[in-house]
Amino acid sequence: MEGDTFQQWKNQCLNKCDFSKKGSVDEDISHIVSFINSHDRYFTTSSCSGRIILFDGVSDCPDVQKRNCSWLFVTHQKCQREDVVTGLEKSVGDATFKFEPFVLHVQCKQLGDAQLLHTVAINSGLRNSGITVGKKGKIIMAVRSTHCLEVPLSHKGNVLTTDQYLDFLVGVANQKMDENLKRIERFYECLQGALQPQEQRCSLKEEADKKPIYRRRRKRTQDEPVTDCCQSIEKHHENSEEEMNCDLLFLS
Amino acid sequence: MEGDTFQQWKNQCLNKCDFSKKGSVDEDISHIVSFINSHDRYFTTSSCSGRIILFDGVSDCPDVQKRNCSWLFVTHQKCQREDVVTGLEKSVGDATFKFEPFVLHVQCKQLGDAQLLHTVAINSGLRNSGITVGKKGKIIMAVRSTHCLEVPLSHKGNVLTTDQYLDFLVGVANQKMDENLKRIERFYECLQGALQPQEQRCSLKEEADKKPIYRRRRKRTQDEPVTDCCQSIEKHHENSEEEMNCDLLFLS
Repeated sequence: MEGDTFQQWKNQCLNKCDFSKKGSVDEDISHIVSFINSHDRYFTTSSCSGRIILFDGVSDCPDVQKRNCSWLFVTHQKCQREDVVTGLEKSVGDATFKFEPFVLHVQCKQLGDAQLLHTVAINSGLRNSGITVGKKGKIIMAVRSTHCLEVPLSHKGNVLTTDQYLDFLVGVANQKMDENLKRIERFYECLQGALQPQEQRCSLKEEADKKPIYRRRRKRTQDEPVTDCCQSIEKHHENSEEEMNCDLLFLS
Repeated sequence: MEGDTFQQWKNQCLNKCDFSKKGSVDEDISHIVSFINSHDRYFTTSSCSGRIILFDGVSDCPDVQKRNCSWLFVTHQKCQREDVVTGLEKSVGDATFKFEPFVLHVQCKQLGDAQLLHTVAINSGLRNSGITVGKKGKIIMAVRSTHCLEVPLSHKGNVLTTDQYLDFLVGVANQKMDENLKRIERFYECLQGALQPQEQRCSLKEEADKKPIYRRRRKRTQDEPVTDCCQSIEKHHENSEEEMNCDLLFLS
């Protein structure tokens, strides 16, 4: 990857308008986005700190299509039962309540940079993370978590759950939002441990004395209630993460 | 990647015992697993055709830990309300109903092989697919879909939903299973278009006349009801897939 080409892509991306409805980076991850964009080998292309949403889909339409849905409620924070009840009053189709966790897409200069970021993500419990390599040489690391909620609540506008259930559901979603924030912070800590801020790297380079810092990855914790009912799938998760259990070596 | 090393890994993997509870490849994807393993540049390391599960978690424990859960019901086919009701009778904690789609992990000889497989996966609607590169050079392409269900149903053993809701929920889950099977077939068709079966390649090599087949990727369809509330995240999906819209060129 030519240094100039990557820098050009980075400049184009960071200078263009944010076309999302929100138009700005979510507050809970702005420190992560800034940190990554300050590093010359990475830049963020999209992000979401996590959200709780209620949307109305077309009844009896198994393919959830963007054009067929209307949004009833959305928040990047915790929610209350009243938010869901109010949203459901506007439902005319099949309303679905969802919790979607933190997601981040980062373009990387080289594959080794993507691998490092991938290790950080897996180490932080963001186990659905993965790398994509485009035909023009664009390398994207997608940071993705596994924990979510997707709960159908109404059919043809008729709400099929009780207020008691909605209370409970909102509590579960808010717990997931709490866990989501913990993973965001864990990711940020691991990221800081793996990448030096740009300013520090410049000043440190001037120092005559450089010593290596050798840091081991934290042992990952299990976060899914999966039993081995399918071909080696749980063994795969364990083996693949041992494979990627590389020591992060960098110079201070 | 040394040819011998990759072949050794492949032999070790395909010859070892399947340690999953089920002990065999799921029927609905056995053709895909066989097809991939017949190709000398790939082999599967884990797989699941998709499943509907009901498991009991520890109440008020936001971190769903494998050791804290017990399985109440699991199927790789469609289910009936009675399955869920019977399972819930055994719940003493917080029971959760989940639909998990098709997932497949494939080890690839080289990055280009992983890219090709990734293109096939994205083209088939399996949008959470991604590549991981381990420190020993192991390249894994994880085929993952986005559609799912995760529905809490009971708290401390008390079921919080009605039979009518369970009827509806089971219907939604079964629709997702239908959609899942369609994506599996789409993936298999795209895979066949991208990779020649091993036997055909050997015999074709002997032919004097080789002509290129140039095939364009199908335009992807949207499958998620997401609105642009976060920084460029929807734009990212569109752009990244245009980037990866490489033409599949192979010799017949």
